[in-house]
Amino acid sequence: MSGETFVVATSRALERRDVTAEVQKAVGSMGVKNGFVVVSVPHTTAAVTVGENWDPDVGTDIERALAEWVPMVRFDHGEGNSSAHFLSEAIGHSRMVKVEKGKLRLGRWQGVFLLELDGPRERHVLVDSLGTGEALPR
Amino acid sequence: MSGETFVVATSRALERRDVTAEVQKAVGSMGVKNGFVVVSVPHTTAAVTVGENWDPDVGTDIERALAEWVPMVRFDHGEGNSSAHFLSEAIGHSRMVKVEKGKLRLGRWQGVFLLELDGPRERHVLVDSLGTGEALPR
Amino acid sequence: MSGETFVVATSRALERRDVTAEVQKAVGSMGVKNGFVVVSVPHTTAAVTVGENWDPDVGTDIERALAEWVPMVRFDHGEGNSSAHFLSEAIGHSRMVKVEKGKLRLGRWQGVFLLELDGPRERHVLVDSLGTGEALPR
Repeated sequence: MSGETFVVATSRALERRDVTAEVQKAVGSMGVKNGFVVVSVPHTTAAVTVGENWDPDVGTDIERALAEWVPMVRFDHGEGNSSAHFLSEAIGHSRMVKVEKGKLRLGRWQGVFLLELDGPRERHVLVDSLGTGEALPR
Repeated sequence: MSGETFVVATSRALERRDVTAEVQKAVGSMGVKNGFVVVSVPHTTAAVTVGENWDPDVGTDIERALAEWVPMVRFDHGEGNSSAHFLSEAIGHSRMVKVEKGKLRLGRWQGVFLLELDGPRERHVLVDSLGTGEALPR
Repeated sequence: MSGETFVVATSRALERRDVTAEVQKAVGSMGVKNGFVVVSVPHTTAAVTVGENWDPDVGTDIERALAEWVPMVRFDHGEGNSSAHFLSEAIGHSRMVKVEKGKLRLGRWQGVFLLELDGPRERHVLVDSLGTGEALPR
């Protein structure tokens, strides 16, 4: 299981980036037909989530809320990005996405998002398959 | 892998609903004996989690905390439910639950919960198996 | 699929404990070569996450932020630990971690953490395999 990896160059400090098309492309490359893929980041100041992908205002609303979520406490970590570590651990470094007949089986308004929490940076997104090229046994 | 789906009609704007029995029923229908099921929602204003299912006060306490969690920022999204999108993405649209000998293998106080974040609505909950009818190879 | 379980005796009320070595040991005992393991807790006042494991200051920064995250609302639950239940449900009782050639395939700065939210207590951490002793079919 080597999986697929794609790179995203983020452009802002805190950025909610739709990567649904890239994940779908990886699913195609791997030949996954049915099952789940795990979408993850090997980073500690980024996260992965699934959410609304229709109205761009939702994206900027969520970016604004993420920025304000982190409690106002003293942070000692020298790099000054403890708030990014906090958000990454709270939200999670991965999400599972269902695949049916080779297509991501998301809800009508759902997309897959990379959350850049300490950008801009080059981020790696991993797509690994828990499914097969065949129908899974039930 | 078609999985099972059940529908929950929520009754309030923000509601933590125990769906453990419905998930267990789906596990039985699918004939899953060992492995994991993925419990997910195809919605962007709901979430799935695993938590305490004994004292009803925990449920109302958590509902109250969820309502206050969302930071007080400007939201532009026209539908007025950006806070629900925020919570859905932060908490997650799915959880994995272990199955052993055909039964959900939860901790003594754990149950599976649908979190309605913008109700009342009819919600779909998907239960998909990563296991088999047999013991999994180690 | 019995999986492996290890016990962690936490020493503080809110403690972020690195359990990467214990998870790696379980992966070895189970003979998992490729795939994913699910790291989970059967508890409702603890959580599991993946995050930075290099600078100890990140750990104390995150502990401080977790303590302040919980909204100041009325809690009715008699045991007085509703904030722990809230954090456990919001963060999650499990994370998936990739395994390659018998080793946890984490990012350079990533480790696996048990989040004690209502300690000190003895906690059980479960490690279950979704992979096999062989390369997974793609």
